[in-house]
Amino acid sequence: MAFDDLEMPYGTFHDVLGGAATYAAIAASSFAPVRLVGVVGQDFPGGFLERLQARGVDLGGVERAPGKTFRWHGRYAADLGSRETIHTALNVFADFRPKIPSTYRETPFLLLGNIHPALQLEVLAQVERPRLVVADTMNLWIHTERETLGELLRKVDVLSINDEEARDLTGHGLLRKAADALRAMGPRRVIIKKGEHGSALFDDEGVFFVPAYPLDALRDPTGAGDSFAGALLGFLARTGRTDGLALRQAMLVAATVASFGVEGLGPERLLSLEHTELAARLRAVESMMNYGGSLPALA
Amino acid sequence: MAFDDLEMPYGTFHDVLGGAATYAAIAASSFAPVRLVGVVGQDFPGGFLERLQARGVDLGGVERAPGKTFRWHGRYAADLGSRETIHTALNVFADFRPKIPSTYRETPFLLLGNIHPALQLEVLAQVERPRLVVADTMNLWIHTERETLGELLRKVDVLSINDEEARDLTGHGLLRKAADALRAMGPRRVIIKKGEHGSALFDDEGVFFVPAYPLDALRDPTGAGDSFAGALLGFLARTGRTDGLALRQAMLVAATVASFGVEGLGPERLLSLEHTELAARLRAVESMMNYGGSLPALA
Repeated sequence: MAFDDLEMPYGTFHDVLGGAATYAAIAASSFAPVRLVGVVGQDFPGGFLERLQARGVDLGGVERAPGKTFRWHGRYAADLGSRETIHTALNVFADFRPKIPSTYRETPFLLLGNIHPALQLEVLAQVERPRLVVADTMNLWIHTERETLGELLRKVDVLSINDEEARDLTGHGLLRKAADALRAMGPRRVIIKKGEHGSALFDDEGVFFVPAYPLDALRDPTGAGDSFAGALLGFLARTGRTDGLALRQAMLVAATVASFGVEGLGPERLLSLEHTELAARLRAVESMMNYGGSLPALA
Repeated sequence: MAFDDLEMPYGTFHDVLGGAATYAAIAASSFAPVRLVGVVGQDFPGGFLERLQARGVDLGGVERAPGKTFRWHGRYAADLGSRETIHTALNVFADFRPKIPSTYRETPFLLLGNIHPALQLEVLAQVERPRLVVADTMNLWIHTERETLGELLRKVDVLSINDEEARDLTGHGLLRKAADALRAMGPRRVIIKKGEHGSALFDDEGVFFVPAYPLDALRDPTGAGDSFAGALLGFLARTGRTDGLALRQAMLVAATVASFGVEGLGPERLLSLEHTELAARLRAVESMMNYGGSLPALA
C-alpha cells in the first residue's frame, strides 16, 4: 500500500493512493470478499481504508506501523507506454513482515503480490491448503533474489508476469519458449501480460489469449497488472473454480477490469466502476474474440 | 516482385526471391486461383515463375521487362522485431505501369498491394466492379503522396495497414482513434496489423482481434503482411463471401498462414506449407480464442 507521486505527460500528481495491494483489493472486491494483508504508515488516510472496508475488504491483515507509508515516484513517457522510477522510499515497508490473522488462515484463493519472494513464502506458509496460489514478481527480485524466487515458483499454481520480466527471467525472446521455461520452474500455468497488446496463458491445455480492449482514453497505467491479478482471483473466488476454462474466463474479466483502471488516475476509475459498465465492456471484449465459433473446412 | 538481400542476425542472404506480389500470390494460392500483376527483369528465374504457375497463379499480368528486377536490401535487428532499409534499386519497377489483361477484367476479389497509390488507382480503374477491394500502403506514400492516397482510400472496402503506419497517417496514438480516423477517410473496414502482437479489425460491427500464434522459431518476418493480405483474399475468394463474419474468419486464416511464412527465409515455408499443417495450427489459434463461448453472469 503506497503513496505514488506520478509525473504524467499531462501533469504531476502527488500522494496518489496506490500500491499493488490497493489495486488488487479494489479489483477483486468487485467479485468476492477480500482479505487484505499489508502495511501503512501513520500518514495513510483512514477514510480511504474505510472506503475499502465498505467494498467488502477485510482489513484485519493491514498493519498501521509507526512512520511513513511506502512511496513510489515514477515518470511516464509521452505515450504512457513506459516509465522510470525516480525514487522509492520503503519507509514502514522496510521492516514489514506480513502477519496473517487467524481469521485468514483458511483462504482458498491466494494472491501473492509483488514483494520480496522470502515474504511471499512467509505468507504462503501461514495459509492452510489454499486451493489456488497466484504469484506476481518483478525484475528486481529476478536479478537479486533468484534462488528464493525459484523456491517460490516451485510452490505456486499460476505465475502472472509481464513479457519483459518473462524474457528477463528465462533469457528467451520468444514468449512460447519463455513460458515453457517458466513452467519448468514450477507453476502449472503461466500468464504473460503484454499491456496494450493483451495477455497470454500457457498451460497443459495449450495457449489462450485475451486482447486488450482498445481504449478511447488512456490516463494512468499504474497498477494495471495488479488490477488484472486482483480481478482474476476475485472472479475465480466468486465462481469457486480453479480449472483451465475458468481461468480463461477469469482472464477476460481481469483484462476488462484492468482496461477501466487505466482510464483514470490512480485507483479512482476502479472505485467508481459499476457492474453495468463492466458487463457492457465484457460483451465488447467477447465480441473481439467472436469469429462464429468454427471455420469452414479448407481441405 | 523482387530480389531481397537480407542481413539477418544469423547470416546474410542474397537474391532471396520476394516482393509483396510474390508473398501475397503464394499465400492466396493455397485457397483460390490467383491472377498476378507485376513486373520482373531479365534476371528473374523462369523456374520460380513456373512454381507459381503450378500453384494456380495466372501469370498473364506479369510483365518481363528489359533490365533488372527490383531489389531491396534490408537489415534486421537482433530480435527481428525491426529492420532498416539499406538500399532500394527500383530497376524495371521504375517505369512500371500495371496493365490488366482482358482475362483479368472481371476479378471479384482485388488486392492492391503496396505500390504508388496512383498505380493502385490505375489497377482499380481497370477492374470491372470488384466485389471486394483491399488495399495496403506504406509510410513512404503517407509522407509523399498523401492526396493521391486519400483518393484511393475513398475507393477501397478494406485498408490493411500496420500499427505504425496507422499512427503515422492519422496522428493518433490510440489504435481505436487511429482506426476511426482511417475509416472516416473511406474504407468501411480497417485492419491494423501489429506483427507478433496480432491484428485488429475495426468496422461497423465493432472490433475484432486475432492473436499471433506464438512461434517456436522465428526466422524472417519479410513479407508477413503480404502473406497475411494474400491469405485473407484467397480465403474470402474461396468462400465467396465479403461479410463481416467471413472477414473475421479470414483474419484467423491469414494470421495463421503468415505465422508459417515467418518460420522460413523468404517465401520457402509458404511454398512448402501443407493443408494438414495449416489445419492443425488453425485449431491451435481457435483454441487461443476459446473461453467456452459465454461468461457466467456477474451481477
